[in-house]
Amino acid sequence: MSKPLLLYTFPTPNGVKVSAFLEELKTVYPSVDYDVESINLSKNTQKARVTREPWFINLNPNGRIPVLVDRSRNNFPVFETGAILLYLQQHYDKENRFGWDPKENPDEYSQALQWIFFAHGGVGPMQGQLNHFNKAAPIDIPYAKKRYFDETKRLYSVLEIRLSQDRDWLVGPGRGVYSIADINVLAWVRVHAFSGIDSLDQWPNVKKWVEAAHARPGFSAGLNVGRS
Amino acid sequence: MSKPLLLYTFPTPNGVKVSAFLEELKTVYPSVDYDVESINLSKNTQKARVTREPWFINLNPNGRIPVLVDRSRNNFPVFETGAILLYLQQHYDKENRFGWDPKENPDEYSQALQWIFFAHGGVGPMQGQLNHFNKAAPIDIPYAKKRYFDETKRLYSVLEIRLSQDRDWLVGPGRGVYSIADINVLAWVRVHAFSGIDSLDQWPNVKKWVEAAHARPGFSAGLNVGRS
Repeated sequence: MSKPLLLYTFPTPNGVKVSAFLEELKTVYPSVDYDVESINLSKNTQKARVTREPWFINLNPNGRIPVLVDRSRNNFPVFETGAILLYLQQHYDKENRFGWDPKENPDEYSQALQWIFFAHGGVGPMQGQLNHFNKAAPIDIPYAKKRYFDETKRLYSVLEIRLSQDRDWLVGPGRGVYSIADINVLAWVRVHAFSGIDSLDQWPNVKKWVEAAHARPGFSAGLNVGRS
Repeated sequence: MSKPLLLYTFPTPNGVKVSAFLEELKTVYPSVDYDVESINLSKNTQKARVTREPWFINLNPNGRIPVLVDRSRNNFPVFETGAILLYLQQHYDKENRFGWDPKENPDEYSQALQWIFFAHGGVGPMQGQLNHFNKAAPIDIPYAKKRYFDETKRLYSVLEIRLSQDRDWLVGPGRGVYSIADINVLAWVRVHAFSGIDSLDQWPNVKKWVEAAHARPGFSAGLNVGRS
């Protein structure tokens, strides 16, 4: 029997957001299972070209991984990491262990959205630009490197503000509850060293938070899904 | 009597997302009304420094406009444009004219999220970087200008793919329904000329879509809210 979910992915930070959450879901709900189709965008191979082919553009017109296809719901396709996390939480986290119901807990639901959008429009694109100018750009542009280095660090400081308010996790009552709001941005912050930010020492609460996530078997199991 | 909502804003593309939606809501629901606190970030004034003051950081640790405060719900603060649009739609669009209920219409709700995240992580940050290198950067960096010019145009082409599928609006059955998914990205695409993209002629369906939005009294009323 084919598995209920199919994930097109590669273990980039954006890919890891989704595979880490799927692995967390599996630890709680054994029926949540997924097939993986690895798409290695780092190589100019047939796999990389896949994202420009009509069948893939039909799933995601933006031609990017990850993309989730829900076979159990009429092959419904979902693109954009934030939307995939929210989709999986709504449909597959029936006990709301990793998120909040919009009607029952509208404030926590909104706060989760706020932090997910903060990461999706800030940490992800800015750290992504930093990686581009550090690793991929064909010319050395110190101005751009400094711009995105400084901005990425500023965004980590925003997370530090939140986590220094007697919190373990970004959203939820009291010290917070580990949720998709954390997973969504942890996938980027955990690879800070690749981006040239050697240490998290200047953000001690962010550092503890990253360590606490890696201590979770589910999160850790998701870090290499899709490596071909 | 004070109005139920308070919006800290300025008519940048991100500010306009929210004010355009609030003005649309007012056309349908006369009880939806809001005060505006203008925060002119383009000038190094006392107003601009406001976003670094503790009371503002307490509302949005990222120190950015727009921020919504819902006086009618215990002064609940909402930051990040995508989260503000979804919050307003859930709490103030009781007839779901501009969005979908997650339980009743889960597929349309997810598709709206997908397009909102597409804009929030793509069009917004990339067109924003284009503006930075065109207008604000202290040195001329042709590589960066071209990078963000090309990427912004590619992202417009993704919208064109969607809108060329016999659609007037990004999400909804048939030809689609004007929704927060449209408003969220229209606020950026409409200022293409400021970003050096003189014409939308190469994306005819995007062009029609931008024109159709501007023909709406609500949308148009939101374009200058917060100008001081």
